[in-house]
Amino acid sequence: MNVTRTAEIYKGIQQTICRTLETADGSGKFTESEWEKEVGSGVTCVMQNGSIIEKAGVNFSSVRGIFKDNMAKLLGEDASTFAATGISSIIHSGNPFVPTIHMNVRYFSLDNGSSWFGGGIDLTPAYINLEEAREFHQAVKDVCDHYDTTFYPEWKTWADDYFYLPHRHETRGIGGIFFDRIQPSNENDFEKLLNFTSDLARIYPVIYSRLMKDNGHKPYTEAQKKWQKIRRGRYVEFNLIHDRGTKFGLESEGNIESILVSLPSEVEWVYQYQPQPGSPEAQVQEMLKKGIAWV
Amino acid sequence: MNVTRTAEIYKGIQQTICRTLETADGSGKFTESEWEKEVGSGVTCVMQNGSIIEKAGVNFSSVRGIFKDNMAKLLGEDASTFAATGISSIIHSGNPFVPTIHMNVRYFSLDNGSSWFGGGIDLTPAYINLEEAREFHQAVKDVCDHYDTTFYPEWKTWADDYFYLPHRHETRGIGGIFFDRIQPSNENDFEKLLNFTSDLARIYPVIYSRLMKDNGHKPYTEAQKKWQKIRRGRYVEFNLIHDRGTKFGLESEGNIESILVSLPSEVEWVYQYQPQPGSPEAQVQEMLKKGIAWV
Repeated sequence: MNVTRTAEIYKGIQQTICRTLETADGSGKFTESEWEKEVGSGVTCVMQNGSIIEKAGVNFSSVRGIFKDNMAKLLGEDASTFAATGISSIIHSGNPFVPTIHMNVRYFSLDNGSSWFGGGIDLTPAYINLEEAREFHQAVKDVCDHYDTTFYPEWKTWADDYFYLPHRHETRGIGGIFFDRIQPSNENDFEKLLNFTSDLARIYPVIYSRLMKDNGHKPYTEAQKKWQKIRRGRYVEFNLIHDRGTKFGLESEGNIESILVSLPSEVEWVYQYQPQPGSPEAQVQEMLKKGIAWV
Repeated sequence: MNVTRTAEIYKGIQQTICRTLETADGSGKFTESEWEKEVGSGVTCVMQNGSIIEKAGVNFSSVRGIFKDNMAKLLGEDASTFAATGISSIIHSGNPFVPTIHMNVRYFSLDNGSSWFGGGIDLTPAYINLEEAREFHQAVKDVCDHYDTTFYPEWKTWADDYFYLPHRHETRGIGGIFFDRIQPSNENDFEKLLNFTSDLARIYPVIYSRLMKDNGHKPYTEAQKKWQKIRRGRYVEFNLIHDRGTKFGLESEGNIESILVSLPSEVEWVYQYQPQPGSPEAQVQEMLKKGIAWV
């Protein structure tokens, strides 16, 4: 069955992600908690206080159950049962020059015949290195283009719209791609979408290892650390107010520690904080907008 | 007109709150920003980095306008215009032995004849001092009882239900009172409710000055500070996910800095943090439940 196969592949990739990140970090180790409930099972992998990584969560889950009214309403579908599997991950580093990153791939299947893939990857730097921003988008575009040249342009725009804080009039970071409800079709068959999402999940720790290697040991000032904590405040605002995955997790009474492992460790809110005009901090704030053509 | 009179009285009390807190803090001063929009006007008073108070917001506003569809839906009322005024305040102190406190009073009036008062006060300690908890509830009960002995028991229960984080199965703190849609009636006429909410707002800085005086200079360890930051994480979760005032502010595109001045400065999230069994931290966690008879 498609869900079972997808789950097996994703579960293997979760391990690859963790081992790759451990190697890049040097000292940090992931703790692994398996959980099993009536609805299914999962593995929550968490690293805290590595040498570069401050907090990373890599969650895998595979669940199935009754298709409830609130899901029907949310998804505009009618079915009796559902099955879903996915990997969801966020990494926060201590060094303000190492961005926060997020990646998610998921497959959802209903007994009415509907099924789809969804997911995305996006980068949230406290300081924007233009060359790195370009390389990040290029790496994501390369994975997309290998499968379909329409993926990147469409899903990059979708990411700009999704990873957005309307109350701040800011994007969360420099974006990436976001896609949802991609139903297998003649053009995009199941194997193609499974392989694409798997490749996206596989490249994720490779991209991040590079960012850690290049920036993880850069010296920084207390003021730069403070700026990172303030930017993390926006990340918390996005995750608690807007993020669909978090909302779904809270509403479905999921494991709260697994859901909120996405939140950074140290965060700060300062009333009316305004970076100095012309400073690198002000430059970041000016670039947090939709529609920037990074590649 | 009732709204105008209420607004004048509340605006005066905002000043009293700020001056009382400045005196108790010793060095911190409130900055005052007046704002004026088509919908009305307000004054946002903020203190940051006082000698005891880390961050305090005391907001006053008085607005009126078209009664929109989303308000009608939210309130279950039909009207053409509304007018509202209120004070909303939260204080966070640096010392983990000084609790966080919140107070809000508001008056809402529609041109269909409906009008009501709402508000509340609640205390969120990182460490629970049982004697202080009792004194806090007693002080709130005294204000209530002076007007109506039914207020405290009913509104104490309402606070237990409102200041609650379902995803954590925890109350936000030790509660207080919460009330909403209290329409002036023969039993509770407008003057009585105006005087009651005014007295509640006036006693608020008095209660907090006492807590600052008794605890503001107590020595504390790094571990105790960390615990305070973790508890503040719960405060952020409540305000961003559940608090109606914050939600209403975000949806109505209010001044974002005034709305989120309620968030504490330094906050921390730790995956699966568990206090030592039998420790003061564990004791707090055990007391974060509904239905405790503090007085």
